Amino acid sequence: MRRFITAAEGLPQWTSPISHAVVVDRHCYLSGQLSLDTQGRLLPGTAAEEAHRAFEHLFRALAAAGFERSDLVFIDIAFLDLADLPQVNAVYERLFPAGQRPARTVYQAAGLPFGGKVKVQGVAVREAEAGGA
Amino acid sequence: MRRFITAAEGLPQWTSPISHAVVVDRHCYLSGQLSLDTQGRLLPGTAAEEAHRAFEHLFRALAAAGFERSDLVFIDIAFLDLADLPQVNAVYERLFPAGQRPARTVYQAAGLPFGGKVKVQGVAVREAEAGGA
Amino acid sequence: MRRFITAAEGLPQWTSPISHAVVVDRHCYLSGQLSLDTQGRLLPGTAAEEAHRAFEHLFRALAAAGFERSDLVFIDIAFLDLADLPQVNAVYERLFPAGQRPARTVYQAAGLPFGGKVKVQGVAVREAEAGGA
Repeated sequence: MRRFITAAEGLPQWTSPISHAVVVDRHCYLSGQLSLDTQGRLLPGTAAEEAHRAFEHLFRALAAAGFERSDLVFIDIAFLDLADLPQVNAVYERLFPAGQRPARTVYQAAGLPFGGKVKVQGVAVREAEAGGA
Repeated sequence: MRRFITAAEGLPQWTSPISHAVVVDRHCYLSGQLSLDTQGRLLPGTAAEEAHRAFEHLFRALAAAGFERSDLVFIDIAFLDLADLPQVNAVYERLFPAGQRPARTVYQAAGLPFGGKVKVQGVAVREAEAGGA
Repeated sequence: MRRFITAAEGLPQWTSPISHAVVVDRHCYLSGQLSLDTQGRLLPGTAAEEAHRAFEHLFRALAAAGFERSDLVFIDIAFLDLADLPQVNAVYERLFPAGQRPARTVYQAAGLPFGGKVKVQGVAVREAEAGGA
């Protein structure tokens, strides 16, 4: 089973040639999300605010794909300024419960689309049914 | 089943210690590709030209791995200058049909190998057979 | 089956809200690793030294997750300075045997956490049992 999530309630209408999420069987690949409004314009804020909004979009895409937040196995966060990492971690800790957090990688990019401060991207995987592969 | 694609017709002969693609069962992980010639030297051009050539290499690695372009679920594009995003999107839209596009993430790197302007990387996943997992 | 690797012998004790690795069935997603000591402080060195230590952490996380080095299908390496690529490749070639190397992508970031010179991240996948999916 393959599904392409190209639009969903509350998600930015991309002018970009992408799917918000692509599902193949138990795997869901998510596009990078920024602090955009539903028309695809940057909603600038502090790094914490932008990260929170970017994660809301990521979770909306995930839900539209039929996955749960707890299915996320990997998160990639790109910063315009890594000095913002502590304030983004404070947001992040509330989004994911301790002991069940995704693997993660963070770095400072030289630039992000739309002039955003924080970009988040992820992968979700559901377990096979008991008895399955 | 695990397979390593280390060379294929038209692909750059890497001096780098990598496989162009690694396949495990229904998943195919692809190495980052740039606008290189078959000897592994940069073929400089506009960002659109470099992106087109990088995608040709990505598709060759994918084909050598036994996968189709429509199996691509995720694409990562790194730019030396994000101002090139519109011209690369114009190329990209022709490579992937609307409504069936991969999830994607883009950012501006501080530098790319060989002095390239655009690097593309991806993951492909094939569906399980009906009745399989 | 889903497992979160949050600590293991020799791995940095993260103050960061992450798992070192997340396993779902036959897939293992690994967090980015740097040249840190077990208290999570940077151990600065040459790029080759930092890369070697970062890979030791990646391999420890992988082992704690119950995977082998030969299960790695993809490696992402971020550099603070791509001029360090040749010396890191010299380390890398000894870590992965020719002909069975992961797919890989490398780029220069504008900054890495803790002021590191090299960050490494990866994905490992185990094959299905014969007769499985």
